[in-house]
Amino acid sequence: MAPSEKEKAILGLTAVALRDRLAEGSLRAVDLVRACLARIEEAEPQVGAWAWLDGDYAQAQAERLDQWRQSGRPLGPLHGLPIGLKDIIDTKGIPTENGTPIDAGRVPKADAWIVSRLRAAGAIILGKTVTTECAFMQPGKTRNPHDPAHTPGGSSQGSAAAVGAGMVPLAIGTQTGGSVIRPASFCGIVGMKPSFGLIPRTGILPQSPFLDTVGVFARSVEDCALLAEVLAGHDPADPSTELAPTPRMLEVARSRPPVQPAFAFVKPPGWDDADAQMKAALEELVALLGDVCAEVPLPGFEEIASLRQKINFAEMAKCYYPLERRGRDLMSDRLKAAIDEGKSVLARDYIAALDWRDVMNGALKAVFTRFDVILCPAAPGPAPKGLDDTGSAIFNGLWTLAGVPAVTLPLFTSESGLPIGVQLVGPRGDDARLLRTARWLADHLETLDLQR
Amino acid sequence: MAPSEKEKAILGLTAVALRDRLAEGSLRAVDLVRACLARIEEAEPQVGAWAWLDGDYAQAQAERLDQWRQSGRPLGPLHGLPIGLKDIIDTKGIPTENGTPIDAGRVPKADAWIVSRLRAAGAIILGKTVTTECAFMQPGKTRNPHDPAHTPGGSSQGSAAAVGAGMVPLAIGTQTGGSVIRPASFCGIVGMKPSFGLIPRTGILPQSPFLDTVGVFARSVEDCALLAEVLAGHDPADPSTELAPTPRMLEVARSRPPVQPAFAFVKPPGWDDADAQMKAALEELVALLGDVCAEVPLPGFEEIASLRQKINFAEMAKCYYPLERRGRDLMSDRLKAAIDEGKSVLARDYIAALDWRDVMNGALKAVFTRFDVILCPAAPGPAPKGLDDTGSAIFNGLWTLAGVPAVTLPLFTSESGLPIGVQLVGPRGDDARLLRTARWLADHLETLDLQR
Repeated sequence: MAPSEKEKAILGLTAVALRDRLAEGSLRAVDLVRACLARIEEAEPQVGAWAWLDGDYAQAQAERLDQWRQSGRPLGPLHGLPIGLKDIIDTKGIPTENGTPIDAGRVPKADAWIVSRLRAAGAIILGKTVTTECAFMQPGKTRNPHDPAHTPGGSSQGSAAAVGAGMVPLAIGTQTGGSVIRPASFCGIVGMKPSFGLIPRTGILPQSPFLDTVGVFARSVEDCALLAEVLAGHDPADPSTELAPTPRMLEVARSRPPVQPAFAFVKPPGWDDADAQMKAALEELVALLGDVCAEVPLPGFEEIASLRQKINFAEMAKCYYPLERRGRDLMSDRLKAAIDEGKSVLARDYIAALDWRDVMNGALKAVFTRFDVILCPAAPGPAPKGLDDTGSAIFNGLWTLAGVPAVTLPLFTSESGLPIGVQLVGPRGDDARLLRTARWLADHLETLDLQR
Repeated sequence: MAPSEKEKAILGLTAVALRDRLAEGSLRAVDLVRACLARIEEAEPQVGAWAWLDGDYAQAQAERLDQWRQSGRPLGPLHGLPIGLKDIIDTKGIPTENGTPIDAGRVPKADAWIVSRLRAAGAIILGKTVTTECAFMQPGKTRNPHDPAHTPGGSSQGSAAAVGAGMVPLAIGTQTGGSVIRPASFCGIVGMKPSFGLIPRTGILPQSPFLDTVGVFARSVEDCALLAEVLAGHDPADPSTELAPTPRMLEVARSRPPVQPAFAFVKPPGWDDADAQMKAALEELVALLGDVCAEVPLPGFEEIASLRQKINFAEMAKCYYPLERRGRDLMSDRLKAAIDEGKSVLARDYIAALDWRDVMNGALKAVFTRFDVILCPAAPGPAPKGLDDTGSAIFNGLWTLAGVPAVTLPLFTSESGLPIGVQLVGPRGDDARLLRTARWLADHLETLDLQR
């Protein structure tokens, strides 16, 4: 059954607005979940965003949370908000199959660290979203919610498509190359890949521990801030995380920048081969920003893609060795080829490649001294046609290797009606300020549009 | 000129006793330095512990520190204590040649992190001590202070020999395989290799960042505690260190254990081939300890030596690449062979080997639940004859890989009069308690000896 008009109105709200209504009692979690389920029933046959979904289980959580609220007890920051989780994130008692038949029927005995956090914050685990095979390149069943003939991107394809299709206000994915920013751009939503080390990864399928980064999907910058702030923290079991205070991302994202932010427009390696519509749109945006934006070269970044891939493949060869032993025959040719390439990487080349995170951040320091954020494309263009390939991560991998935070905003639409994202990149550790600048940009362009 | 009787009495004191006299004003730093220099003048031609030494520079520091004390200002924890530094530790304006002709005449522009700490604590940089070539295996000029026909061990050979010869009360070295515990054992002194990550390594020649550990040499356990406590800390530039409170090592080391410590006697891989005298001595010690000591097997540790070497050589191939480019012809065959072996290590084998630190600590947890420390040999026997080889690190490398703290005590003497060390190993991060147990054991054996 398709959503009612009332349910459509609920589904049109941002997560922050939903949270406020849930907290004040003007919206019940069961009604929100029912609206999500109705939209899923309507769109899922076409989109295929979910790997596991159990409406009763979601409703049971919602009922318990509504009772909790009615009892007057204090509410968590995500009280009553349904969330989709990429199916490489372990959920206790709920199948987590990592997008591979090797793990068919796998049911984890424990929640991932972030899932414990979500439950404690009052979130509703709505279901598990489709991932590409082992979060690598072989696509799952998901289609682009804006046009089913086009890829939704990868690897967090179900999470991005579910939010893009309006099935759920929030979802979580991971990025090792470009698996958050790219699908968010293709699906026309806001995606955020925080600084490396901000969110613990314990209980999430490791592919390349030096690169794997948890990211979030939503329909607004503030919603991303709301969710990322809850997930940020320190877990001694994940050595990439640090014992440091959690940044107040939502508060900062909502605040007004003290001065107009300055944007460094960067044409990263790969720009020349990118889509003409995307380039024109981005250059129009740069012109529109005027004085607060200047083009900045990034010399010496040409080799980054191959360095990142070396690290990714070498660590994948090690991390997926147990999977490979259990079922190499069940792996796609693409995955096997990458693992085999990873097996031949030499340790000294791998170790030398690791140094590039520091080298890149050293080079970026000069940019971030003069500019608040880097402005660049989120992907070479709109989602390509076809479902065999999830598109290129050429404009994402460099920021993943650098470990810097990135946000994509769905600012443009192609002639054929597909979304095109614009990526903002900030200095490592400065996630909150990046979100504030992203929100400023989104608001600024809306104002300009209204004035036209 | 050899030390006078009065100077001999000064040189016989521990660092803690010297510190107390310096603080109360009954000993001047200039007199202490003069005593050290007299002993060096006497013994250096035979021992060859120093790579760089400037008596005037040491005296100038001592004079300034004496004036400081006389002015009534507060004193640092090492006020007036002379220290020897392995010549891979950068010292601003003082040659640091890393034991290789490639770096002949190299003068760093900045102090290593620990050298800044030492200066702030009031220590006197007495000089730079001989290291093997690039802290690897090719020996420097140093000889064993107990018998010049025997090796002092490596790679921190000058530091161990200088303390062993009574030239300086404290010295600093580094251990990547067995370069602190082994030379300390051979030279008849107390050596301590703290937990990995306790002491920042910024400004020290990196050979294998996953293994390189700063260690200390002294003539008593308390002296090691005094020095290690000053060096412990957090440096954001060394990601192995953590932002955590510094353990109060001296206070704990001096305190009385609440109950008699329990010792797990371990015969590590390599035991069967070790020296008969050492084995007999250790088994006598075990018998002497009686009820508080039990033999514990360490199954599955046979492969550790080759795993550690894989990491060491692979990282060395990467870290010494700039050195190699500048002067491969000036490298010893031993070093070149190890670098070449390191170049052929595959990334996935290297990454898999890194996991063993956690695997080992998991296995050790069961031991440390029942026992306070592991008791094992510090080296296969006394210092071997000859100067071409620095001896075997077979009983040290496994603890370096595990990152657990280790202390060697000079408890035995071979028939030919050479010292034999006994190694105590504690759980990672529990350095202070390991020192307390080591002090307890040293005191306990002294008491037994007096009772005989």
